[in-house]
Amino acid sequence: MKNIALTPPKGWNSWNIYGASVTEQEVRNNAQVMAEKLKAYGWEYVVVDIQWYEPTASTSLYNTFAPLCLDEYSRPVPAVNRFPSSEGGLGMKPLADYVHSLGLKFGIHILRGIPREAVHRRMPLKGTTLTADQIATNTICPWNSDMYGVNTRLPEGRQYYDSLMEMYSAWDIDFIKVDDIAFSKIYPDAHLDEIKAIRESIDRINPNIILSLSPGPANLRDGSFLQEHANMWRLTDDFWDEWPMVLEMFERCNQWSPFIRPGSWPDCDMLPLGHIAIRSDERGVSERDTRLTRDEQRTMMTLWSLFQSPLMFGGELTLLDDWTFSLLANKELTEMHLKLKHQKQVWRDNTWIVWQAEADDSNYTAIFNISDTHAILPHDIAARFMPAAGGLEMWSGQSTESVRDAIPSHGCLIFRAI
Amino acid sequence: MKNIALTPPKGWNSWNIYGASVTEQEVRNNAQVMAEKLKAYGWEYVVVDIQWYEPTASTSLYNTFAPLCLDEYSRPVPAVNRFPSSEGGLGMKPLADYVHSLGLKFGIHILRGIPREAVHRRMPLKGTTLTADQIATNTICPWNSDMYGVNTRLPEGRQYYDSLMEMYSAWDIDFIKVDDIAFSKIYPDAHLDEIKAIRESIDRINPNIILSLSPGPANLRDGSFLQEHANMWRLTDDFWDEWPMVLEMFERCNQWSPFIRPGSWPDCDMLPLGHIAIRSDERGVSERDTRLTRDEQRTMMTLWSLFQSPLMFGGELTLLDDWTFSLLANKELTEMHLKLKHQKQVWRDNTWIVWQAEADDSNYTAIFNISDTHAILPHDIAARFMPAAGGLEMWSGQSTESVRDAIPSHGCLIFRAI
Amino acid sequence: MKNIALTPPKGWNSWNIYGASVTEQEVRNNAQVMAEKLKAYGWEYVVVDIQWYEPTASTSLYNTFAPLCLDEYSRPVPAVNRFPSSEGGLGMKPLADYVHSLGLKFGIHILRGIPREAVHRRMPLKGTTLTADQIATNTICPWNSDMYGVNTRLPEGRQYYDSLMEMYSAWDIDFIKVDDIAFSKIYPDAHLDEIKAIRESIDRINPNIILSLSPGPANLRDGSFLQEHANMWRLTDDFWDEWPMVLEMFERCNQWSPFIRPGSWPDCDMLPLGHIAIRSDERGVSERDTRLTRDEQRTMMTLWSLFQSPLMFGGELTLLDDWTFSLLANKELTEMHLKLKHQKQVWRDNTWIVWQAEADDSNYTAIFNISDTHAILPHDIAARFMPAAGGLEMWSGQSTESVRDAIPSHGCLIFRAI
Amino acid sequence: MKNIALTPPKGWNSWNIYGASVTEQEVRNNAQVMAEKLKAYGWEYVVVDIQWYEPTASTSLYNTFAPLCLDEYSRPVPAVNRFPSSEGGLGMKPLADYVHSLGLKFGIHILRGIPREAVHRRMPLKGTTLTADQIATNTICPWNSDMYGVNTRLPEGRQYYDSLMEMYSAWDIDFIKVDDIAFSKIYPDAHLDEIKAIRESIDRINPNIILSLSPGPANLRDGSFLQEHANMWRLTDDFWDEWPMVLEMFERCNQWSPFIRPGSWPDCDMLPLGHIAIRSDERGVSERDTRLTRDEQRTMMTLWSLFQSPLMFGGELTLLDDWTFSLLANKELTEMHLKLKHQKQVWRDNTWIVWQAEADDSNYTAIFNISDTHAILPHDIAARFMPAAGGLEMWSGQSTESVRDAIPSHGCLIFRAI
Repeated sequence: MKNIALTPPKGWNSWNIYGASVTEQEVRNNAQVMAEKLKAYGWEYVVVDIQWYEPTASTSLYNTFAPLCLDEYSRPVPAVNRFPSSEGGLGMKPLADYVHSLGLKFGIHILRGIPREAVHRRMPLKGTTLTADQIATNTICPWNSDMYGVNTRLPEGRQYYDSLMEMYSAWDIDFIKVDDIAFSKIYPDAHLDEIKAIRESIDRINPNIILSLSPGPANLRDGSFLQEHANMWRLTDDFWDEWPMVLEMFERCNQWSPFIRPGSWPDCDMLPLGHIAIRSDERGVSERDTRLTRDEQRTMMTLWSLFQSPLMFGGELTLLDDWTFSLLANKELTEMHLKLKHQKQVWRDNTWIVWQAEADDSNYTAIFNISDTHAILPHDIAARFMPAAGGLEMWSGQSTESVRDAIPSHGCLIFRAI
Repeated sequence: MKNIALTPPKGWNSWNIYGASVTEQEVRNNAQVMAEKLKAYGWEYVVVDIQWYEPTASTSLYNTFAPLCLDEYSRPVPAVNRFPSSEGGLGMKPLADYVHSLGLKFGIHILRGIPREAVHRRMPLKGTTLTADQIATNTICPWNSDMYGVNTRLPEGRQYYDSLMEMYSAWDIDFIKVDDIAFSKIYPDAHLDEIKAIRESIDRINPNIILSLSPGPANLRDGSFLQEHANMWRLTDDFWDEWPMVLEMFERCNQWSPFIRPGSWPDCDMLPLGHIAIRSDERGVSERDTRLTRDEQRTMMTLWSLFQSPLMFGGELTLLDDWTFSLLANKELTEMHLKLKHQKQVWRDNTWIVWQAEADDSNYTAIFNISDTHAILPHDIAARFMPAAGGLEMWSGQSTESVRDAIPSHGCLIFRAI
Repeated sequence: MKNIALTPPKGWNSWNIYGASVTEQEVRNNAQVMAEKLKAYGWEYVVVDIQWYEPTASTSLYNTFAPLCLDEYSRPVPAVNRFPSSEGGLGMKPLADYVHSLGLKFGIHILRGIPREAVHRRMPLKGTTLTADQIATNTICPWNSDMYGVNTRLPEGRQYYDSLMEMYSAWDIDFIKVDDIAFSKIYPDAHLDEIKAIRESIDRINPNIILSLSPGPANLRDGSFLQEHANMWRLTDDFWDEWPMVLEMFERCNQWSPFIRPGSWPDCDMLPLGHIAIRSDERGVSERDTRLTRDEQRTMMTLWSLFQSPLMFGGELTLLDDWTFSLLANKELTEMHLKLKHQKQVWRDNTWIVWQAEADDSNYTAIFNISDTHAILPHDIAARFMPAAGGLEMWSGQSTESVRDAIPSHGCLIFRAI
Repeated sequence: MKNIALTPPKGWNSWNIYGASVTEQEVRNNAQVMAEKLKAYGWEYVVVDIQWYEPTASTSLYNTFAPLCLDEYSRPVPAVNRFPSSEGGLGMKPLADYVHSLGLKFGIHILRGIPREAVHRRMPLKGTTLTADQIATNTICPWNSDMYGVNTRLPEGRQYYDSLMEMYSAWDIDFIKVDDIAFSKIYPDAHLDEIKAIRESIDRINPNIILSLSPGPANLRDGSFLQEHANMWRLTDDFWDEWPMVLEMFERCNQWSPFIRPGSWPDCDMLPLGHIAIRSDERGVSERDTRLTRDEQRTMMTLWSLFQSPLMFGGELTLLDDWTFSLLANKELTEMHLKLKHQKQVWRDNTWIVWQAEADDSNYTAIFNISDTHAILPHDIAARFMPAAGGLEMWSGQSTESVRDAIPSHGCLIFRAI
């Protein structure tokens, strides 16, 4: 695995806003705002999520057995009705070019496997006389009906993944999010062979591509394997704007913190902040401003940053408000996110969670109030973990000594000490 | 559920000999022998196992994504190259007629669901304008790539099962073994909705059809549901001619014995006796005489009979030898199998297992030596369970008092007391 | 196992009212009311629950490592401060005599094992030179600190259980509820060996004693074993007056219904009706009238009765009100409870559950509304399960045809058809 | 947690040789040899394993409910018959002094909790009027009957652990191996509260004491907690001289490798090498030379060293032979063991496992043949992982280029590249 993603990837992803249905124009609009407002703070990847090859996708709910756009080698290609610049077999190249022209990078989502439609039509593959049905396995994604797994024990199976990477390379893709592969509810072994095959295809064809694996929860016992094979992988199932999901992430982060390494990042999932779910009905709710309170939003940003999770904004950037911008563009947090080591939970009781981390030039302490009421940090916890005077509380910009030890429900303080 | 299968079904099944590949001629040959030699002992059903709709099936190993023979309504129909009498759309009717002409009954195997080929070709269904893709669910059988599940919450889904039962009724089918439905390694809920839908289709269309469910191990917690919905259901995964599988069945039978009821029978699976596996490579071995010793064969017949398991002979009847015939045609066992109640394991230690059962006119006690050496029944076990004088040991035909208490390794004695 | 408990045992138990602390006088008071008011309806057993050998017990919360009253053979004997008539080594005999004088039967609760105090004091045992520490195993009850398990592979271990049964026989005990034995949260094998040893002790010493096993949830896979060894065993952990616990019992009953047999009864636990918890803090609440609504109380009585669960009233009988009496003294239900077979759940959806059962002279159908609102039985369910005219709704005493099909939330109707 | 154990602890432990029964003289004899022969190679800790407070211990099999030597504050103290220098209340101090006089360090084993004997005798505790029964919890070790857990929510419970640490400090103990605490077969939460309490007692009383936790398998989800609270913790249940246990350790090491940190070491358990089991019957075998082949012994030493497991020799040092010495005193391995980072499994198939690790000045690659036959490393694996010329194979001392790529069954090569 090449030395890439040495800091946690940051960017924007279309899922939280558009589900499976984002259009090229929407991607371009968001990319433009990102370049203007967020690029300076390290936000870099523009990622088109699932189903860009399905003409009929209209929300986050999947159309079972929907027709897909495939090329002559059984590979999904963009639906021209949704991605007009792909017309004439150009694929995602024109859109990637546009994103690159803004000084950003471009990513796409794919599902583990080969289209079932190609299998049952016995379609050809690139570079072999075998057909799609001969390299497919009888394994499926339980929540999406598009693909069968690929038999990576066959050279022709591995070649299919090569043929995908060749196409993506020709399109100038920088980032691939592969889904139905980091964890499976129905198969115990989490498709480790296909992860390995995809890793090796990337290594062969274009080792600069960032590899992101979904969905979670990944298994801890696969952690060292994932470190060796992926640049980021998900700790949980899809994350949404609900406090119980934030709260649950603390324990996930606690368990996964020993696995954080430059180049391979445990991933807390997208940030459902600002205006979201324009075409989504996930979890029974649709278009809205994030339902997390402002304190909860800061808590989420603090945990994600201190954990060095990849950061993928999930809101509509053309509607970015000042508050949300302040979360994404906090200079202290942005710098911290690049350079930590040894981050870890050092305290947890029913009210308080404390995390600490180190950098070469400073130390960080975050104190979270996970209770449902405003609370005052007890003396013993303060004595044990609060940094000495001379530091900075990073959200307020105040000095350590001027910050009161009262923290609102679901809120936090984060200190940099030197 | 109609009052049928009031005694445990008995017959012959093609799987142990021919895997997925039996031909019509082979079925006819076996049926003929059954009529001649075994009908008198209650052997009645001739069952064609899996893949009779697949022209290329040649062994017990499945051809992934193989083409199937379907009618215009997405229903599998016999492969004419294997079942010539089905030519011209006659289906299994001519073969069923032949079997009936011998005084026997005829059964077929089907898989839960609707052919994937029909789904991806968006084929029509009988009696609705919906197409196959619109009633299929994204659930599969993990060990066979032919079918998707059917969405039984849709009236059109339930109608598909009706359309199958109508066809089977037209063919004069007496018995259906439905597979991938009593237990699933990948789905926790064992397809209970599809069992219910199939039961209701049978009740609507032809309540005389016997419903058998595979594979096991069925869950005990589904036991009362299965009693209500099926005539027989499997306790284990496929059974073969290996002593550890016999041994393991004792505990299964022990757990399931409270569920035995006239009309709904826990099923120990086929009897791999005589000459088997002519076209099978299951578990890495092929054509052979059964690998169970003669003592083990009697032990199996004794347990299956006392448990009132359905009895489906799995060997080639045209090669039936005298010894095997003696197992299938033991008059005492045959009578006992029809009329028991309250069968139960009453003792188990590392060497001995004892079962007892009652009938209106007599009591039965079977004593099994499960150790690997010849052993003599200890006095305390004998005193507690051995019937008084005046009865009969059913395999030897000797009187209770003349039978010695030494039992060979893996062998058994079974007594009828009056 | 002797032919006893041929109908499900009925009686009164001290746990729901007094926790671990009932006194002799309270037992006598309750017994007297039972004899006067309930004996005529089949209520028969008066059972003293846990800790009658602990002088300091004062509520349902256990005193960890509390001192116990033991005789010279390591056997728990009644605490004289709580059971004055036991003074002078008379044990429970005087109390049993009193209960018998009322025409009732008398039961006690014991815990699996031998007192830890006897083990660590290396106390003597009856009929052997071994001491308590030499027959104890290093297994404990996870929720009570009184006992170690007994090594039943040693003759002296089995002899200890014999010595208990001899004492209980001398006391004229009719019923034993053994706890920490039907299920264990910490040991997978549910103490099957100790169940077997206790069964065999009873068979040797006094086969008329009824054996009841706690706590649940017993494992279904042990069901046939429990049928062979116990007269009743628990399906769940302790049952209290909360609707979710009633609701959850339906599925337990569904799973266990095939195991119902005269002499061996799956047990839904005590009836926390009327005035309860005088000295109990179980589940964080104390003295009260039952928190179940009247509809829920009828639902509970109906399910328990149709399932032929043993019925042990858990309320204070000296405070028995008319409503509660009407639940315990419904003549129709009382008769039905004695004579059913083939009881089973025949329908369940999100609103309705239907159970049916048969007797020689009539059939029974109970329809439960498990939803949180008043609901009208849909025509298709009514058509399928409602009995024809000419029968009786057993709670109202009205004829089948005069009963409306509207059922209150958590309520039920139960019909007898002839 | 203080900055100690910055390299993985190395030493000797009495368990593999003497089970629960080692004597002071045997400890002294082994310590002397260690000082003479192994100290130069970093072997430092002399650890007395379990039951040093039990006079009757004679093998590795525990005496259930055996009497223990306790001081007036409910604390176990050495059995004078086995540790004569402890006479007069001197405890382990004289033995610790002796070990220190050799330039070595001294450790003892303890079990989580407080003696049951103290609890049932209601013995006093140091510094409080509460008695032992008042701070004990009703939790036990499932494989040893000596202790109850301590209620660490009570200040007096925490104080008991303080009183232990004070005594151990007075004895000049350097290392404590706490058992029944890293994992429990019967309790899901692995006694995390008691780990925390013991950690805090050490931090308060003597933060120089090394804390080692047993037994495994520790849970991966507790990994970050263990990093924060212990210096070493076990990955598996007891390790013995059987190849399948070595083989199984590879996957454990693979899963735990991300957790390796200076100061907190995942622990592969003792090295059962040389002459072992003089008074042990673990796993049904007794006194013997290690049953691992020489290739397996090198494989074990290589894996343990590259993984930076703590190394605790388990053989009788007075009988140390040249071969075994060569395993413990390999200069290259010894140096490598001190200074690695990023160790990880980089390849595994059915025949080969490859691990790599880095140090500031060199890189390491170990290649293991896990198959049952002599095998030649395939070209593709060699090309991918074999270091370039110029390095050293560390067991043979030969240059990389002169080493043949044939590796015996269960054997290995390990290379240092610069």
